[in-house]
Amino acid sequence: MGRLRNLISIQDLTREDIDLILDTSAKMESVAVKRSKELEGKIMATLFFEPSTRTRLSFESAMIRLGGSILGFADVATSSAGGKGETLADTIRTVERYADVIVIRHNLDGSARLAAEFSRIPVINAGSGSEEHPTQALLDLYSIRKLKGKIDGISISLCGDLKYGRTVHSLGMALSYYGVTVKLAAPPGLRMKPAIIDEMKKAGLRVTEVDTLEEAVKDVDVVYMTRIQKERFPDVRDYDAVQGKFRLRLQDVGMMRQDAVILHPLPRVDEIEPEVDKTPQAKYFDQVYNGVITRMALLRLILG
Amino acid sequence: MGRLRNLISIQDLTREDIDLILDTSAKMESVAVKRSKELEGKIMATLFFEPSTRTRLSFESAMIRLGGSILGFADVATSSAGGKGETLADTIRTVERYADVIVIRHNLDGSARLAAEFSRIPVINAGSGSEEHPTQALLDLYSIRKLKGKIDGISISLCGDLKYGRTVHSLGMALSYYGVTVKLAAPPGLRMKPAIIDEMKKAGLRVTEVDTLEEAVKDVDVVYMTRIQKERFPDVRDYDAVQGKFRLRLQDVGMMRQDAVILHPLPRVDEIEPEVDKTPQAKYFDQVYNGVITRMALLRLILG
Amino acid sequence: MGRLRNLISIQDLTREDIDLILDTSAKMESVAVKRSKELEGKIMATLFFEPSTRTRLSFESAMIRLGGSILGFADVATSSAGGKGETLADTIRTVERYADVIVIRHNLDGSARLAAEFSRIPVINAGSGSEEHPTQALLDLYSIRKLKGKIDGISISLCGDLKYGRTVHSLGMALSYYGVTVKLAAPPGLRMKPAIIDEMKKAGLRVTEVDTLEEAVKDVDVVYMTRIQKERFPDVRDYDAVQGKFRLRLQDVGMMRQDAVILHPLPRVDEIEPEVDKTPQAKYFDQVYNGVITRMALLRLILG
Repeated sequence: MGRLRNLISIQDLTREDIDLILDTSAKMESVAVKRSKELEGKIMATLFFEPSTRTRLSFESAMIRLGGSILGFADVATSSAGGKGETLADTIRTVERYADVIVIRHNLDGSARLAAEFSRIPVINAGSGSEEHPTQALLDLYSIRKLKGKIDGISISLCGDLKYGRTVHSLGMALSYYGVTVKLAAPPGLRMKPAIIDEMKKAGLRVTEVDTLEEAVKDVDVVYMTRIQKERFPDVRDYDAVQGKFRLRLQDVGMMRQDAVILHPLPRVDEIEPEVDKTPQAKYFDQVYNGVITRMALLRLILG
Repeated sequence: MGRLRNLISIQDLTREDIDLILDTSAKMESVAVKRSKELEGKIMATLFFEPSTRTRLSFESAMIRLGGSILGFADVATSSAGGKGETLADTIRTVERYADVIVIRHNLDGSARLAAEFSRIPVINAGSGSEEHPTQALLDLYSIRKLKGKIDGISISLCGDLKYGRTVHSLGMALSYYGVTVKLAAPPGLRMKPAIIDEMKKAGLRVTEVDTLEEAVKDVDVVYMTRIQKERFPDVRDYDAVQGKFRLRLQDVGMMRQDAVILHPLPRVDEIEPEVDKTPQAKYFDQVYNGVITRMALLRLILG
Repeated sequence: MGRLRNLISIQDLTREDIDLILDTSAKMESVAVKRSKELEGKIMATLFFEPSTRTRLSFESAMIRLGGSILGFADVATSSAGGKGETLADTIRTVERYADVIVIRHNLDGSARLAAEFSRIPVINAGSGSEEHPTQALLDLYSIRKLKGKIDGISISLCGDLKYGRTVHSLGMALSYYGVTVKLAAPPGLRMKPAIIDEMKKAGLRVTEVDTLEEAVKDVDVVYMTRIQKERFPDVRDYDAVQGKFRLRLQDVGMMRQDAVILHPLPRVDEIEPEVDKTPQAKYFDQVYNGVITRMALLRLILG
């Protein structure tokens, strides 16, 4: 990555940076299977102020496959940052003395950036507030490239909660580096913020908004589903109405291209019917494994 | 184990399987002390949906002694399976991409079986609902063989909560492979389910039920105590009555054979007086160490 | 350490023991950077019955840098000692079968001593009740020696909550082995217990008590700040009054010697203004790293 030592936002990366990460990921496929000792003795601190299964365990699996070690917390209640009122800056200035890289998830926007400003060791953003989840975007790009053979020229529909979902924000920004066609399909109150749409258009992407999942799944290479969170709706009846309309069912898959792929950052609740899992288009569990691969690449590029 | 890749229920194992596990355990005694690197690079995921000290740390100690690494969660609240409503099937289809073996404890009956059905990597049941705890049964058998030199031909009393205690269910089933004599001693409401007794008898075991701890401890090689859980009793006075009668005291040990041994899956609360700990019959803390040994054997047989 | 196998109280150590730990710490500086495999295969159990970031992660970082492995719990709720009512003695007699050394933090006075009495493997006290935190005292001594070149002959002010703060109790006792001058500066209700002051005087230390932070920071080599915990005050107004008076501000640093150093066991809440962090006297984050160094020395001396 050369000049890059942190990964806070997709927007800090150039297209070259991203391509380097994706190329390095491809090299990691065999290392992931054979395991390696290239990061032996190195320490990754995982500071998870918000719960996570996937992202934390995925980073840990990546670090272990490279021979490195892990410390940290999965639950802020067990740390001084929880009970004793320590500031994030102080927590970072402490943990930087214990490890070689910090992986942080925090519920506040800007938290990962703040952490990087105070840290002398590299910081990787594993999800900050509702704004960013850059390693998810990288694994999404890698999944697309691996499944479709390329990113430039593909068409993709982003579906579900495009307003609060931090994964689609980061993915939207990441796609801006590539010549892709984007359809956005969200319920009325959960549309992608105009600022992000503008940025995608400014970057040369063809972006259209559609109203239904039916329109979204047709004639695209990638259908990217996201979870619609009940707690976003003041009135539960609004949620029920929306949730039903943005649920991917077996008949929707029937309308998709034969070689289209369905991705989802997971966890999935109701937004994809279990019957869909068995279709050849369903690739969201393969996508999980690509998260290990991409994070191995990042750890090699930052620590190796 | 040959054809076995998971360990979900003792009933999935043949007598030959069990003997192989016990023989392998005996070989592990020296490896446990010296430590080994035979599972270097291998990853064990520990998914504990229910709290545990012993089982989780015992598996971790076993994996470390074989040179392997660990990831997972000890607290479901820190995982997506907690807060975000992910199904167990989805959690398993995720974690199987991160690890080489899954060790799962879950509060629901059938959970470990379900996990194994969805997983492409081996699954070990570390306690499912109130039905099964097969690795506990294996370490119990190994403890008996190590302490008494054999399993066939011994006599054993199972005492305490035989209705809800998952360890005695698994142990009862495990003993069915051997020619042993079993006394069952439980308070009225906590008797062993007739189905399990029938199965033991069908397997050729001599099974009798007794009413008091006094009858239970006499003339047997092994006294297997279990915890009676207060929360099983609607009326706390019933608990108090029962608890007093099924408490192993120093005078009870006096009525035991000189060479008898007392086992307990632990944790122990009130059901064994602390004074008993110092008697030569008390072997429940040695039993703890046998858990490490047996789990090392399992990990070698599954991953090695 | 020779005859020492546990570290429960600073008072169990001789001056020679402490000097050996500090000398070994100095040797660890380069090992901490390069990493080592000298404790490969060894297992450290971290039993944290109370939350902690610093102490737990610092021990883990130390163990990893020496090539060792870690198991344990950071949250008592996930262990049998939490939900199932197991005694500490039983938890220890269990965990000693899983590891080579136990590091324990517990909210009760005497808990670490009790653990050591029941354990067959070495026990290190990582904070017991409000009485002791010996590894903090050792890292404080090491920080002083590293920053000031010596301990004998220095002058130090202990400031803040000297009544409940376990770190200052252990540090006060540790300083008793050295010829130092001590100023104690605490709010009225939070003064150092007379018994500890007497012991320090009996050991030959010059001890004076002062009423204000202003008096405390002048003419000393080391200003040792501690957190004043709101929950110690029945009336929150009393806390507010005290807290303002015992807050280290930039102007206080102006009154300090040019070569004086400010230490703090952290976490810090309000008792040091963030502006102070940038002064050359502020050494509390360097002190954090010395915790890793000192704990590496302890682990080598106990396990190596």
